[in-house]
Amino acid sequence: MGPVGVRYPGGAPGDPGRSSEDEKVVSSKRVKEILSWYGSSNAGTLGNLARILNHGRLGGTGKLVILPVDQGFEHGPARSFAKNPPAYDPRYHFELAIDAGCNAYAAPLGFLEAGAAEFAGDIPLILKLNNSDSLYGGTDPAPAVTGSVDDALRLGCAAIGFTIYPASAARNEMYQQIRALSEEAKSKGLAVVIWSYPRGSGISKDGETALDVVAYATQIAAQLGAHFIKVKPPTAYIEQKDAKKVFESEKIPVETLPDRVRHVVQSAFGGRRIVIFSGGAAKGRDEVLDEIRGIAQGGGFGSIVGRNSFQRPKTQAIELLHEIMDIYANA
Amino acid sequence: MGPVGVRYPGGAPGDPGRSSEDEKVVSSKRVKEILSWYGSSNAGTLGNLARILNHGRLGGTGKLVILPVDQGFEHGPARSFAKNPPAYDPRYHFELAIDAGCNAYAAPLGFLEAGAAEFAGDIPLILKLNNSDSLYGGTDPAPAVTGSVDDALRLGCAAIGFTIYPASAARNEMYQQIRALSEEAKSKGLAVVIWSYPRGSGISKDGETALDVVAYATQIAAQLGAHFIKVKPPTAYIEQKDAKKVFESEKIPVETLPDRVRHVVQSAFGGRRIVIFSGGAAKGRDEVLDEIRGIAQGGGFGSIVGRNSFQRPKTQAIELLHEIMDIYANA
Amino acid sequence: MGPVGVRYPGGAPGDPGRSSEDEKVVSSKRVKEILSWYGSSNAGTLGNLARILNHGRLGGTGKLVILPVDQGFEHGPARSFAKNPPAYDPRYHFELAIDAGCNAYAAPLGFLEAGAAEFAGDIPLILKLNNSDSLYGGTDPAPAVTGSVDDALRLGCAAIGFTIYPASAARNEMYQQIRALSEEAKSKGLAVVIWSYPRGSGISKDGETALDVVAYATQIAAQLGAHFIKVKPPTAYIEQKDAKKVFESEKIPVETLPDRVRHVVQSAFGGRRIVIFSGGAAKGRDEVLDEIRGIAQGGGFGSIVGRNSFQRPKTQAIELLHEIMDIYANA
Amino acid sequence: MGPVGVRYPGGAPGDPGRSSEDEKVVSSKRVKEILSWYGSSNAGTLGNLARILNHGRLGGTGKLVILPVDQGFEHGPARSFAKNPPAYDPRYHFELAIDAGCNAYAAPLGFLEAGAAEFAGDIPLILKLNNSDSLYGGTDPAPAVTGSVDDALRLGCAAIGFTIYPASAARNEMYQQIRALSEEAKSKGLAVVIWSYPRGSGISKDGETALDVVAYATQIAAQLGAHFIKVKPPTAYIEQKDAKKVFESEKIPVETLPDRVRHVVQSAFGGRRIVIFSGGAAKGRDEVLDEIRGIAQGGGFGSIVGRNSFQRPKTQAIELLHEIMDIYANA
Amino acid sequence: MGPVGVRYPGGAPGDPGRSSEDEKVVSSKRVKEILSWYGSSNAGTLGNLARILNHGRLGGTGKLVILPVDQGFEHGPARSFAKNPPAYDPRYHFELAIDAGCNAYAAPLGFLEAGAAEFAGDIPLILKLNNSDSLYGGTDPAPAVTGSVDDALRLGCAAIGFTIYPASAARNEMYQQIRALSEEAKSKGLAVVIWSYPRGSGISKDGETALDVVAYATQIAAQLGAHFIKVKPPTAYIEQKDAKKVFESEKIPVETLPDRVRHVVQSAFGGRRIVIFSGGAAKGRDEVLDEIRGIAQGGGFGSIVGRNSFQRPKTQAIELLHEIMDIYANA
Repeated sequence: MGPVGVRYPGGAPGDPGRSSEDEKVVSSKRVKEILSWYGSSNAGTLGNLARILNHGRLGGTGKLVILPVDQGFEHGPARSFAKNPPAYDPRYHFELAIDAGCNAYAAPLGFLEAGAAEFAGDIPLILKLNNSDSLYGGTDPAPAVTGSVDDALRLGCAAIGFTIYPASAARNEMYQQIRALSEEAKSKGLAVVIWSYPRGSGISKDGETALDVVAYATQIAAQLGAHFIKVKPPTAYIEQKDAKKVFESEKIPVETLPDRVRHVVQSAFGGRRIVIFSGGAAKGRDEVLDEIRGIAQGGGFGSIVGRNSFQRPKTQAIELLHEIMDIYANA
Repeated sequence: MGPVGVRYPGGAPGDPGRSSEDEKVVSSKRVKEILSWYGSSNAGTLGNLARILNHGRLGGTGKLVILPVDQGFEHGPARSFAKNPPAYDPRYHFELAIDAGCNAYAAPLGFLEAGAAEFAGDIPLILKLNNSDSLYGGTDPAPAVTGSVDDALRLGCAAIGFTIYPASAARNEMYQQIRALSEEAKSKGLAVVIWSYPRGSGISKDGETALDVVAYATQIAAQLGAHFIKVKPPTAYIEQKDAKKVFESEKIPVETLPDRVRHVVQSAFGGRRIVIFSGGAAKGRDEVLDEIRGIAQGGGFGSIVGRNSFQRPKTQAIELLHEIMDIYANA
Repeated sequence: MGPVGVRYPGGAPGDPGRSSEDEKVVSSKRVKEILSWYGSSNAGTLGNLARILNHGRLGGTGKLVILPVDQGFEHGPARSFAKNPPAYDPRYHFELAIDAGCNAYAAPLGFLEAGAAEFAGDIPLILKLNNSDSLYGGTDPAPAVTGSVDDALRLGCAAIGFTIYPASAARNEMYQQIRALSEEAKSKGLAVVIWSYPRGSGISKDGETALDVVAYATQIAAQLGAHFIKVKPPTAYIEQKDAKKVFESEKIPVETLPDRVRHVVQSAFGGRRIVIFSGGAAKGRDEVLDEIRGIAQGGGFGSIVGRNSFQRPKTQAIELLHEIMDIYANA
Repeated sequence: MGPVGVRYPGGAPGDPGRSSEDEKVVSSKRVKEILSWYGSSNAGTLGNLARILNHGRLGGTGKLVILPVDQGFEHGPARSFAKNPPAYDPRYHFELAIDAGCNAYAAPLGFLEAGAAEFAGDIPLILKLNNSDSLYGGTDPAPAVTGSVDDALRLGCAAIGFTIYPASAARNEMYQQIRALSEEAKSKGLAVVIWSYPRGSGISKDGETALDVVAYATQIAAQLGAHFIKVKPPTAYIEQKDAKKVFESEKIPVETLPDRVRHVVQSAFGGRRIVIFSGGAAKGRDEVLDEIRGIAQGGGFGSIVGRNSFQRPKTQAIELLHEIMDIYANA
Repeated sequence: MGPVGVRYPGGAPGDPGRSSEDEKVVSSKRVKEILSWYGSSNAGTLGNLARILNHGRLGGTGKLVILPVDQGFEHGPARSFAKNPPAYDPRYHFELAIDAGCNAYAAPLGFLEAGAAEFAGDIPLILKLNNSDSLYGGTDPAPAVTGSVDDALRLGCAAIGFTIYPASAARNEMYQQIRALSEEAKSKGLAVVIWSYPRGSGISKDGETALDVVAYATQIAAQLGAHFIKVKPPTAYIEQKDAKKVFESEKIPVETLPDRVRHVVQSAFGGRRIVIFSGGAAKGRDEVLDEIRGIAQGGGFGSIVGRNSFQRPKTQAIELLHEIMDIYANA
């Protein structure tokens, strides 16, 4: 019994003993179903969505685990890589993503340029097109655009990635940047991943992961035309008064993580946009896996696992990523 | 025992029964070796070369079988599809290529537009960017450009395809068209496939498949910057007087098809460009397989099999394609 | 005795005593190794990296000393050139760089225009594409773009140079300017040098050379896609609280300059980007050489030596530059 | 003993035995003199002229030997490479040009793409931007444009090359193509090499190498703005009646090859354009060297040696190229 | 007896016996020497430099007097023209410049459009491409771009003119505007004149003409690529603390105007850029001429004389301009 998504039943070339799974894979029913949600995307973009959904250990399941590594830019090198020094080398992350069987690897220009040719064709790539460093602070994050759609094409990426910070005073600039980049990317057959992280003077610190705010951030990303939306796992806190009223009157469950994830996924066009969740700061294995179980139970499509993977020694990281994948595969 | 090029040894997520080959594949050593020949191609183009080389039943072997269907444009519908009427429907060819486990499917704009979204992600596509019809005759073929590089991107293609007719009075126009298209395609991360078919007032009818002429056509395509070169299996005939002298003085073997294929492959930059051979007009299974054996023995990288596949009933076609693939896999 | 300008050390052409190795100046193994780190750069850019790495007294060693002269713009003419008045003349700096055997000479548009034709082919040039003057102060530096990639081509430059000021309120504008200039430069075969000088309201004065900040600035330049990164020698001070925790928990050594340079080089993609260090304000010979020894010991790739060379009389400057080169050559 | 790749003949850095002249490779007086002829070229173009003139065993002498390999395209692979099969591999020619110490290597797009990254920085490259194949005959040659100026930049070339066929019915198309390409190349800092080969229905077969015709072809290339002009060694035959009258009335000497070369060089703006001569079809060593002696004596700037080098075994080829270089070095 | 290369053979400047038709001339040695400083300028730009340097009563001397009339825009009409009402008519200024034998006439778009055709060929024109009006105040001047390079071409100008205000908060915008305009102008064969007037919140009122500041402004204009630099005569005041230290330690003389002009000229690339001085507000004849004598003695290349000429009755103005020219001619 092959995995979902495998198609060639007949045997390998010249090798009667080979099982069907040896042969290449076409999209599973579930992947086809997911693609059907993106009816306005051209075939090129659909193909790149499929590349990501069909790749790696979760390929064909409709679930995803993606390795993102932009912390070098966002938090600085020592905070990102000193715990696991091989991770200073950009090739390390390509190898980690490939060896762990991730669906894709996402990083800024410099990191992708440093390995895209060497690992060409080995894993779908996502070029992060904006980044903030933390040498200049301020309440309202305002990232810089650090790459282009043409960079994504020449590096062979399947998608562009972009972070928006709803609640920042600079949010509109970001919305307008991703609007233009997304329009261009889609016309050239690429997919669009939006990291949607509410932060800034518009909300409180707790509000950044408040359920209403995370759900709202998800909706904004979806309305901006994202194919994949990445948000943080929401807490039970509700930030906005007007939202609170509705959560109460409509009795939207907020108690458990699965409940909350369900609300977030529903906020992504009734579950018709792919929502994946970040793991956040490095933490213990059990804590990570508990959270993943909650996300998976709530219908989350997968996880972006950065610091919790590349700050561990490689074998431990792969082990943890496999455990995470297994949870999604069995959800 | 998995095919060359499979990487994930550990087992499928949550399915203890699955063998490692289930998981997705990174480029085999042979594919990496082939990619190393294209040192001036960007990572995007290398990735698309890898997509084609890693896909299908021959994925990872460095050998290829591609389904090309431009006969509707080139020869008219009845001549092309009446023998096997389901082939009138463009979806038929996507399915045939996918079900047979071809490395790629190549067709003109209309055929690709008719299925690219439905089959997005299921098989690498090659957009044929020029075509000739046979309603206007003449000795010197001069195809029209019928698609663009941006079409290839929006349809999610891995490569553009283009036919040149060396020996045609219109050859220079074709060389200049593919020069410009190829420059654009390469800058946007696509691969370039050149069909190089000598024909026209510069040579005799027999000369079209003469060994010296086919080898020369191969060289021209390589010098124009092709990643994949498609030519016809050469005969032992030598067309050009000056070439004949050299074949004789240098004792270049021409007797057997493997000998001749070897010369053609050598003419592709000493074997450092991928040369694949067309099957030509429909013929009997044995005749086809004999020819394939000769090509494989001579070091050919694979075949483009059009009429000999889609003019047969589907199950017979798949059977034949699998037999062809088996020959390459075991070469 | 060969003619001036002949690269072949062993004798005149035809001299039977010359060994064949004398006769080519191809990149050394070390240079080839360095080029291999830049797998996404095209052959033109690789060639220009090689031009710089192969030129001058340190040619072929993988180490570099570059003469930069933008102080006229940055600090004004008297502060820059009054100590050594011949340096008011732009030709002086071309001659100094050539006579001292530097790997390259970097300057703003005006200075390069004043000598590029006269010294064409004599030394690799780097056109500094942005500059700040100090007639308008303010905490947050914001340089102006003062040249273009096409200027660099018409002046025969091997690379463009650009200064970013992480920690400035205007940093994003700079990141976005270099993003666009870098994309254009790379597509036209030029290399990219980023001066990364943290400065501005985001950090303290001491923070400008703090080890964590310099390492972070190095990482940012690398992620922006720089081929060469120029930073200041770091002090043992750690500016950022979150970084301090990691430096302590991971026991990153900060005591000696070699320790600190090692951390900075590691922060440049695990040592896979070329990091060179500025000499800073003019100081005594011994102080300069001590610092260079520390940088060389820590694995720094070389130095940019401006004021410490051109503010000395020419023979003394050349002597000092040679001493610096010797330290790198023997590191 | 310096490191591999160091340009400085006298010793390692710091070696007190080295005199200061060892330490720079700037253009020789002769090269500076040659550059002064091209006063309307920008510094980028002058730098690329200098790169070619300063490179290789003849570097700095003002004389050149260039390896051109376009015969694969022009004559077909067997006629070009069968005599010396390693030459089928494009890397062979890079290595031959480098190992022999040629000033530059010239080839069409495909051949340069196949090695430009691997040999980046090792030898100045010239991208041949047009080519004719010989599968389509005809009296009036009409090459196709097969590359672009942007190709030349991304491949790191120092110059573009282009063939014109004065006396062909299609000559004007060529003149107009090189006019546009040359304008673009010069604005981007590249040099321009014109192969000027009179051929076509305008002249007789003997006329192709007639002294008046070769001199005229030289003048046309110079008037089209070429930096380097490549022509065939002229015979004593005079093709054009009107020219013959002047040759006779002005007693222009035509008897010896040096006489004729002198006239051709004079026809290149009184010797102020670089004229180099082709060796033509493969022939015996003595015949080749005799011709070179004649060219050198007549003031020719050098030779383009294709078939006479790459159709010999490599060591013999290098030997012959060195003998040729010695003749020029001592002229 | 005129200076070498002077167009006016009939006598020294000021000789009333000279007729205008005498002219005709090639560049004097001094003009050739000046042109040699601009080695990266194309022949078109050099030709326009020569047009200005060779024109008028000072033609060929390497000295210049230019009539600039942008006060209508900058200060309003009454303040500019009421003292001498014929000056309201744009033709007045063409005539004044021509009749006085100025080297060139500089004005904004409207003034040049009003006379360029009528006086075509009579005097080199400089189109001022930016202007500020004084209806909107503010500490930090920020002029508007009011013309284009194409305007300059269609009006037959020899150069573009542009004002930068170093020390203004808006300086970077100006630097970036002139960068782009200058690149375009130079590629189209025009010369570039930069008015460099420090002003704005970065410096004090006295600082606007402080010697260190004026010298710095000169250097900035030179680094931005100006052919001609126009600054104000400097005072003995030193604005910047860091500069003051150097002026003292290096004993840079500041007492007399010639001393100070000498420092400014040196700051223009060691005297290898043409620096001319403005007369400033209208003042008495003697005061004007005293200042001119100081400038001339210090090696200044000439003056821009606006209000001091066109606010006087025409004959007086011409008389004064001739006196000024005589001082330069005899310097």
